[in-house]
Amino acid sequence: MSDGQERSGFQAEGHAASHGAVVAAQGFRAAAFACGIKRELLDLALVVAEQSVPAAAVFTTSRAAAAPVILCREHLAASPRARAVILTSGCANAGTGQAGLDAARETARCVAEQLRCAPEDVLVCSTGVIGQPLPMPKIISGIKAAATTLERSGPAGHAAATAILTTDTRAKETLIEGQLIEGRGYVIGGMAKGAAMIRPNMATMLAVLTTDALVEPELLGRALQHATERSFNAINIDGCQSTNDTVIVLASGASRVKPDEAQFRESLTSACRELARQIVSDAECATRVIELRVSGAPDDAAAREIGKFVADSDLVRASFHGGDPNWGRILQALGVCRVPVDPRHVNIRYAGITTCREGAYTPFDEQAVLALLEQGDFVVEIEVGEGPGGASVLTADLSPEYVSFNAERS
Amino acid sequence: MSDGQERSGFQAEGHAASHGAVVAAQGFRAAAFACGIKRELLDLALVVAEQSVPAAAVFTTSRAAAAPVILCREHLAASPRARAVILTSGCANAGTGQAGLDAARETARCVAEQLRCAPEDVLVCSTGVIGQPLPMPKIISGIKAAATTLERSGPAGHAAATAILTTDTRAKETLIEGQLIEGRGYVIGGMAKGAAMIRPNMATMLAVLTTDALVEPELLGRALQHATERSFNAINIDGCQSTNDTVIVLASGASRVKPDEAQFRESLTSACRELARQIVSDAECATRVIELRVSGAPDDAAAREIGKFVADSDLVRASFHGGDPNWGRILQALGVCRVPVDPRHVNIRYAGITTCREGAYTPFDEQAVLALLEQGDFVVEIEVGEGPGGASVLTADLSPEYVSFNAERS
Repeated sequence: MSDGQERSGFQAEGHAASHGAVVAAQGFRAAAFACGIKRELLDLALVVAEQSVPAAAVFTTSRAAAAPVILCREHLAASPRARAVILTSGCANAGTGQAGLDAARETARCVAEQLRCAPEDVLVCSTGVIGQPLPMPKIISGIKAAATTLERSGPAGHAAATAILTTDTRAKETLIEGQLIEGRGYVIGGMAKGAAMIRPNMATMLAVLTTDALVEPELLGRALQHATERSFNAINIDGCQSTNDTVIVLASGASRVKPDEAQFRESLTSACRELARQIVSDAECATRVIELRVSGAPDDAAAREIGKFVADSDLVRASFHGGDPNWGRILQALGVCRVPVDPRHVNIRYAGITTCREGAYTPFDEQAVLALLEQGDFVVEIEVGEGPGGASVLTADLSPEYVSFNAERS
Repeated sequence: MSDGQERSGFQAEGHAASHGAVVAAQGFRAAAFACGIKRELLDLALVVAEQSVPAAAVFTTSRAAAAPVILCREHLAASPRARAVILTSGCANAGTGQAGLDAARETARCVAEQLRCAPEDVLVCSTGVIGQPLPMPKIISGIKAAATTLERSGPAGHAAATAILTTDTRAKETLIEGQLIEGRGYVIGGMAKGAAMIRPNMATMLAVLTTDALVEPELLGRALQHATERSFNAINIDGCQSTNDTVIVLASGASRVKPDEAQFRESLTSACRELARQIVSDAECATRVIELRVSGAPDDAAAREIGKFVADSDLVRASFHGGDPNWGRILQALGVCRVPVDPRHVNIRYAGITTCREGAYTPFDEQAVLALLEQGDFVVEIEVGEGPGGASVLTADLSPEYVSFNAERS
């Protein structure tokens, strides 16, 4: 399916009430604890399946991947299954060398002891300051405490979604109801934290999704790859890919519903898109969500690249902050994009009003555009030719407050 | 020569008094005029040789290149010589389609009429707002007025350097004295305007250099390519390459000194580096110049790419604004750089103090570093391995004011 036909895919249509969604699927429990990495705030979350279940993950492509990312890759390479995910916030355990890897291993081992499973069945995620050692005694006490309070309840799931936040202002959760087969259905629930390198030194977007669909690891992996491309990889807040980005999905099979692959893939994509939308709308110091709808590209992947490249531009995102239909900056960005774009075939519309036709200015009602952009979120349509490829990329405006915030010393 | 040995190359060593430097070389005259593109400010400059002389230029690689860039490429392809450069500020003549190209042609034709030369001997540069038509009647009157006041004097050269500014706060000029041969020497003088996409909608860095050395067009082109790589292409203010970037050099030969190629190349590089340094130190809303000294790369070009990539990061440049030795953000940027960097071989020093060793935190005296960074400009050394390649890349800090400024509507 072409993303060109999925243009409203980032909108929260048909999403069920999502409080505590990470344990909405049968077969999962969660717990959260304030172990002391962040002062007096929840900073440790556990999501646990009843037994080892099919698992898949997508990670940052950074060569400076953090220790927990290295460990998760090892564990999933050994076997595409997992029993638990442990997530801590406040310290990314990135830029920590061998000591950091040892700490991540010890974290997994400690969870495994509590659950009486193999350490390889534990996945580890961290988010927070880069270049600081993980405070292991606090984390070990936290794991022991959290392991005794695991439950399948809205409050427990919601507490877990809260415990992974850094300077995000609200928990990000989603719940999707999958197809019914002979009267039985399945659900996909998920939680995430923000995508910006939030706060001085902060890194990471993390997401954990759970489902009770009966899905083999291989299909789960393919579906997650597809979903991530169209959701977490189709947003761009500040162009800074982190050291810790991790998206994990666990499938308990407890519903005993074995969905059709295409249908499951689209449900998972829908859940990931909704989490991605929440991440952008809670981007640090942002005041608007802007949807870049790119069309006419050679294919969907090229369209997505173009949209992300436009969103990389400080000058474009500063103009979004001011609600200024400054199409010249979009044209400037397209001119140096890695995907070749012929500026003579570029048309740009802000909130439905054409401001640039065939790469050149065209008269438009500026007051009308300004009035539309002043309302908050808006859509910018960028046609780059006659090709079949389209994509929807979400970004946020660049505000002076973002810079002030990130200029502060930690 | 390796850039690793040229680390102080951005420092203004041995530069002569540079007021009006663009006419310091024999055989050039200049004039400036306020033709009305910008209200009551100088906005039109002419730099004219006594006859058609060898010329070379380097342009933006943007596919959305502005009309004057397209025209200059045509004129230099027809013959690598030029008689005059006409520069206007306030309107970039970019995003203007065929009408813009016609306007650039008419500009060249009008200058040619005044100087009684071929239109192909005139090079045209514009800088300013993207997507607006050039006000041709004003420009034509301005050319006629300026052509009557051409002189070889400090005030005339300085007025030309002032007329090309947009929101730069000061003229950028440099003067280099070339080698003496049998008691006779030559000079290279130049002027430039700022590199940021300055002000809402603004684009462009422009530079014009003149020399009275006796140099053939081919050698002139090679030397300019070499110099540009190590100067204007080794600075990064906001990662936004413009539609109008142009660097032009004209060689009158009036000194009758025929320099050795290597010597001339280094003198031209020195002149370009000094102009590039002035551009960064006058970057919009910037408060510091930061020199990134990259070493240990496979070659100099790779080192330059790495330095420019680090300077692309909003989070790195925001931390520079705060004087924060936040090496984790540099490591994060290196992790996703197009030139592969193994984080395990990365060492980072702020103002001479090591903050990261082999990709991991190392204890350092934070108060000492903070005190050094508080003083203003500073140097960050980034070792990425054991290779022979090095480069010095200049950047400026990202300030909240930059964003406010660029969020304003034009």
